[in-house]
Amino acid sequence: MDRRSFLRTSALGGAAAASTSLAAPAYAQGNRTLTMVTSVPDGFAIFDDAASLAADMITTMSDGALTINKMPAGSLVGAFEVFDAVSSGQADMYHSAEYYFLNQHPAFAFFTSVPFGMTGPELMSWYYHRGGMDLHHELASLFNLKSFMCGNTAMQPGGWFNSEITSADDLQGLRFRMPGQGGQVLGRLGASVQNIPGGEIYQALASGQIDGAEWIGPFADERMGFQEVTSIYYTSGFHEPGSALALSVNLDVWESLTPAQQKMIEVASEAVHANNLGMSLAENGAALARLQAEGVQVREFPDDVWDAFGRAAAEVREENMGDPIYAEVAESYFAAMEETAAWWQIGDGEYIRQRNRVNAG
Amino acid sequence: MDRRSFLRTSALGGAAAASTSLAAPAYAQGNRTLTMVTSVPDGFAIFDDAASLAADMITTMSDGALTINKMPAGSLVGAFEVFDAVSSGQADMYHSAEYYFLNQHPAFAFFTSVPFGMTGPELMSWYYHRGGMDLHHELASLFNLKSFMCGNTAMQPGGWFNSEITSADDLQGLRFRMPGQGGQVLGRLGASVQNIPGGEIYQALASGQIDGAEWIGPFADERMGFQEVTSIYYTSGFHEPGSALALSVNLDVWESLTPAQQKMIEVASEAVHANNLGMSLAENGAALARLQAEGVQVREFPDDVWDAFGRAAAEVREENMGDPIYAEVAESYFAAMEETAAWWQIGDGEYIRQRNRVNAG
Repeated sequence: MDRRSFLRTSALGGAAAASTSLAAPAYAQGNRTLTMVTSVPDGFAIFDDAASLAADMITTMSDGALTINKMPAGSLVGAFEVFDAVSSGQADMYHSAEYYFLNQHPAFAFFTSVPFGMTGPELMSWYYHRGGMDLHHELASLFNLKSFMCGNTAMQPGGWFNSEITSADDLQGLRFRMPGQGGQVLGRLGASVQNIPGGEIYQALASGQIDGAEWIGPFADERMGFQEVTSIYYTSGFHEPGSALALSVNLDVWESLTPAQQKMIEVASEAVHANNLGMSLAENGAALARLQAEGVQVREFPDDVWDAFGRAAAEVREENMGDPIYAEVAESYFAAMEETAAWWQIGDGEYIRQRNRVNAG
Repeated sequence: MDRRSFLRTSALGGAAAASTSLAAPAYAQGNRTLTMVTSVPDGFAIFDDAASLAADMITTMSDGALTINKMPAGSLVGAFEVFDAVSSGQADMYHSAEYYFLNQHPAFAFFTSVPFGMTGPELMSWYYHRGGMDLHHELASLFNLKSFMCGNTAMQPGGWFNSEITSADDLQGLRFRMPGQGGQVLGRLGASVQNIPGGEIYQALASGQIDGAEWIGPFADERMGFQEVTSIYYTSGFHEPGSALALSVNLDVWESLTPAQQKMIEVASEAVHANNLGMSLAENGAALARLQAEGVQVREFPDDVWDAFGRAAAEVREENMGDPIYAEVAESYFAAMEETAAWWQIGDGEYIRQRNRVNAG
């Protein structure tokens, strides 16, 4: 692939690169406390687990030189205000899901998850070995940020509904909570899509403000209590096949850190990526069993509904391709996905098929 | 699960626990160089990439307080001698695949990979969230070691053969390189199994000492040059569905490190776990295409050969269950696998099936 770095061809990027290479770094001395603003309340399963683990790792590894002070959604700024707060320097770093920030740039979608996109392990292959992380840094630097993937929810279920979805027509007028490109897809199919922060979904469902919602997966959703206010759960979904979370540092703060401290943030984020993916895979099965024991009804979307999701997702995917940055990231992402998914099917896919068959025999 | 820690009930373990909790730690002062012995030559794809990345991360994060001096197989000690070298204190740490050390303890199998066992992501779920890491530490401490998973090769193909395997009878008398429980399974099916270090496989194949071999996967195998000396490649395998590599520190050395330095080793290992899994997934597809372009013939084992692998694997699995430590680890491992694999099928499995179907439509 002939990848032309969008930063090297942009004036803003050129200025940022020049300042990075020419200015002598002025490392802040002594012990520091860095404020981490997040997009969820403390204790929210999976999402806050990732933020807490990253904060603990960095604080411990730096032996007190960097103490991360996590401030949950609503304490310093609101759930969706973390981007502007860190970009402007009001806070030092955020932990969030960057598809909340498509209004800042649509290419952030690829650094969380996109419809019919990569699973968690596939995303790791692109991010660390096919240029994904470099593109992430370049995109974030346009907003005075240094971003790293830092967590992964694994495949997210289709979500919670009050009535079954038997055809795409049932999506017409449905008031549904889904962020990112997934929400744009539902919107094309006639749903009234709302982007509600995690901490406010339960109330929106309970009050009847919305008809349904997706959040993360059985373990995190159970903790939210959705089973108390709705009862039909679609366990597989098109919209977020492996959503990365992100830790993003104000770029001026980043450049004041020593190389060792910068590496701690990078390595902790990568470790949390693995740890958090493992957490979802470990916890979701048992949580789903508990939900079913409480009366939750499990469903799968019919094939023709998946087909409708697929057509609308292709339209949404094309919609932003006029933006050169978006196009460059998309090209890199889908080329990597095609290659990795094909190998995965030959390797893990065939193995899992045989393991299921042999164990059943 | 009512997990009784084997260490808490063992005299050796009790002594180790007491010394850890009672002795005041004596941290070594100043900058230190720690010797890392490995089981492969420098530059061996995937395997040495993991060792090198871990060494770089620890060295950089510690800002020179810990410099990791990697010594490849054969420089200080041989590929399979790293365990004894680190256990005895001759070297400070090893990076290896611990199923090379089944003679030291058969339970080490679970900390690399076992036949019909977990894929890489499943292994992450057990290791970080279902007690796997604690069991690993307890097992390793019996040998004066502190071990962490540090790398993952993803699913390993069945390997390289000179002639097709059309039935299990074709395995009779086959001289084949395969370590770990996988090799024990092939042995039960009549093969003459040899455990040869990575750096010596090519020569063994080229000289006719063995009829076939498995190593890691298309990317690493291509680098070895196996395609020059054999031509049939079975792309899926029963024996190592997601092999973890391990970084293991001499326990006295470990206890001389500061808590911050210990955390750096733990976090770097976890990061390398994700990074290395992603590397295999990213590189294997393109490597397989190159191998096929050079004339390598790709095959899958027939179902009845998989069935024979399955029967022999069940026998091998039972063989060690009289050992209480082995039994405890096995119980934890397979309970986690059953739960995680079931959820994976509902989540990622259904998603991937639909993605393939929708994209083909």
